Amino acid sequence: MTAAAPGRLTGIPPEAFATAARRIMARCDELSRVSADDGSITRVYLSPEHARVNRLAAEWMREVGMTTRMDAAGNQLGLLRAAEKDAPVLMLGSHLDTVIDAGRFDGILGVLMAIETVRLLRVPGAELGSWRSPFPFGIEVAAFSDEEGTRFGKALLGSSAVAGQWDESWWDLTDADGITVREAYREFGLDPGRIGEAAHTSEQLVGYLEAHIEQGPELDRRSEPLAVVSSIASARRFQLSVEGEARHAGGTPYDMRRDALLGASEAALAVERICSAEHHIIGTVGQLEAFPGAVNVVPGEAKFSLDLRGEYDEKRDAVWQRISRDLDEIMGRRHLRWRAREVHQAPALFCDPLLQDVMAQGIGSTLPKGSAEPVTLFSPAGHDGMTIGSVTPVGMLFLRNPDGISHHPDEAVSAPDVALGLRAFAEAVAHRGAEPVS
Amino acid sequence: MTAAAPGRLTGIPPEAFATAARRIMARCDELSRVSADDGSITRVYLSPEHARVNRLAAEWMREVGMTTRMDAAGNQLGLLRAAEKDAPVLMLGSHLDTVIDAGRFDGILGVLMAIETVRLLRVPGAELGSWRSPFPFGIEVAAFSDEEGTRFGKALLGSSAVAGQWDESWWDLTDADGITVREAYREFGLDPGRIGEAAHTSEQLVGYLEAHIEQGPELDRRSEPLAVVSSIASARRFQLSVEGEARHAGGTPYDMRRDALLGASEAALAVERICSAEHHIIGTVGQLEAFPGAVNVVPGEAKFSLDLRGEYDEKRDAVWQRISRDLDEIMGRRHLRWRAREVHQAPALFCDPLLQDVMAQGIGSTLPKGSAEPVTLFSPAGHDGMTIGSVTPVGMLFLRNPDGISHHPDEAVSAPDVALGLRAFAEAVAHRGAEPVS
Repeated sequence: MTAAAPGRLTGIPPEAFATAARRIMARCDELSRVSADDGSITRVYLSPEHARVNRLAAEWMREVGMTTRMDAAGNQLGLLRAAEKDAPVLMLGSHLDTVIDAGRFDGILGVLMAIETVRLLRVPGAELGSWRSPFPFGIEVAAFSDEEGTRFGKALLGSSAVAGQWDESWWDLTDADGITVREAYREFGLDPGRIGEAAHTSEQLVGYLEAHIEQGPELDRRSEPLAVVSSIASARRFQLSVEGEARHAGGTPYDMRRDALLGASEAALAVERICSAEHHIIGTVGQLEAFPGAVNVVPGEAKFSLDLRGEYDEKRDAVWQRISRDLDEIMGRRHLRWRAREVHQAPALFCDPLLQDVMAQGIGSTLPKGSAEPVTLFSPAGHDGMTIGSVTPVGMLFLRNPDGISHHPDEAVSAPDVALGLRAFAEAVAHRGAEPVS
Repeated sequence: MTAAAPGRLTGIPPEAFATAARRIMARCDELSRVSADDGSITRVYLSPEHARVNRLAAEWMREVGMTTRMDAAGNQLGLLRAAEKDAPVLMLGSHLDTVIDAGRFDGILGVLMAIETVRLLRVPGAELGSWRSPFPFGIEVAAFSDEEGTRFGKALLGSSAVAGQWDESWWDLTDADGITVREAYREFGLDPGRIGEAAHTSEQLVGYLEAHIEQGPELDRRSEPLAVVSSIASARRFQLSVEGEARHAGGTPYDMRRDALLGASEAALAVERICSAEHHIIGTVGQLEAFPGAVNVVPGEAKFSLDLRGEYDEKRDAVWQRISRDLDEIMGRRHLRWRAREVHQAPALFCDPLLQDVMAQGIGSTLPKGSAEPVTLFSPAGHDGMTIGSVTPVGMLFLRNPDGISHHPDEAVSAPDVALGLRAFAEAVAHRGAEPVS
């Protein structure tokens, strides 16, 4: 890696990045108004809002000279062809779906930066008014349709289809209204039988690059705008339930209680105690509910979620074993039963060395000569690259996220950081363009 | 108090109590089928089920010679007149509403025992086929309409109206569907403007006696079927909320988290730790929920309930102060804010010495000569007597509740215990009848 590498985009005036960054910020605002909820941002898979943002993204893709299509999984794709018709593509992208009451940038920023990157890099095509890729590969921008898993509980549905990793059991997943993925596909106008057509093969892809806000405070703490991502967290998610006995709150002395909520409370605190003692392991209990949930009834049941992430699969699994042993002790002592259902597992995704290198060169081109090496960060948050990584090399760029606030309306990124990030991202693509296709 | 006091009901053959107990058990079964839920018992205030059980209770009251009316608060009342037209009444009763997924006996048993007591004690009236009270007071059986507070969160609405303690602010309480008490009254066919007509004055009442399952394990542990109640718990209920910051579960390191759920979890455990170290104090967190409640978001808010009961108001309040100090420490350390809204407060109700005495005599009449004094218990559970106690002396009888299971489908009482309890209860009324009216 070389800091302060010479930029390859010397023909682009510096103000072009600032102009593009302003357009990106304005479009983040525009997309934020496409929401299922008034006054907050919620946009889930296969919803009317999903269709609306796909149409907007397609329009913006065509505006920079791409041909567009929505694939069999509802992902919006745009293609900037290479000179050679059958050349593979470098995929650039992120996702347009959101969590409930989301911020404006998570995913969205990466899609818009990919589109602006195309605008910056494209060269005139053979036909009048057409544009093409200047590289021996095409550029495909992917606006993934479901990364967050907000509607069906299962994350990364959109990119899983692109990676050819669709699991037939997912058709029967249901949303809060009991609608299955299969039914939602049909209602959206998609044919479940054609899901396989969304798949890309390794041969069709040169790699995948994504820009994303950090979703954590590291860059802000270090006063750095950009980072190369080294790997994406290994993750496991569990739904846990604790069973005790529902009893009258007044009449049941403590020695006769089997209070499921107190067991779950101890469990949540144990997760914090165990994980916070480890490096690069984080566990979160985001959901917890007591049943029957009456003011005057000792809870007979409690349900809670556990989201466990780590840099390495082995360490993550060792921590889960340790949590399990603690739960055995807690629940045994309280005469409760517990069980865990694993609802998600993803191995750690290590970013490709070449794509980490071009990303570092891209960041380097934004730094003054003699600067230190660009920051490299591990991503505890999941990203579409986790699935795309199964078919092609992945590289990622992180942009500074003030105070690390994410999945929240206060989520932010600054326009100057977006301008810098866009320059680094476009430079990285150009650096990749200078390397052999495969 | 005298154990093994001679029974006053020598004219009643012992098998009459067993027959009545069997009828009570069958009617508990019959009422259990009047439920808003298939396969479980849920019967809330001002619901169609409320109307149906009132009609059944009225029918059974008339069958034993009472005149019936539904009062302005939806309570079902039956009157067995005294010989003298304007004589005051001794009120016997309990409630017909239930918690969600309730047992068959809580409240219901007391209403049915009151009706059978009338059947056992009534004497022929002046008119052919009519019946009257054998005492210088009438007997009024009250089937209260709302003791549990299941629908509107506020307990004891029915008996509060009878005690003339209705609070005008209650009209605006809402149920889970946003329906106010006022609207529910009108829908049920009641006129909110006439609520005052439900009130009884002290002059109209000789006292109030109630039989109830224990809702705790004390009698079962002591292998005793019946107890005199000395007092009903002092209670306070709070809705607490903890405010932190919702953050991305992956990207937010532990030192930047302000996890409201972990604060609430520590709070629930603090309630257990503090209360279990005290005698006759019990605190329960029955509801707890985290928001936004997503698997991958650090909870920014948590809400939970606290039900706090004690034998004495002062000690209960001192324990609440101690819990508050612990919450200050927990939330301060975790950079969370907390607040509590008190939604219910009831002082301890001490049962009337005379009515405790007649109840002990009633129990004594069921015991072999030379037995020990009847058991006396404090009731950590609330009862209609808490409000009725503001206008007239209160006495209560507890029946053994196997394993103390209450507010649960497994709630039980045995037919032999009901027969014994009925005999003790009827004897107690007869003993009260032998004392001056006021």
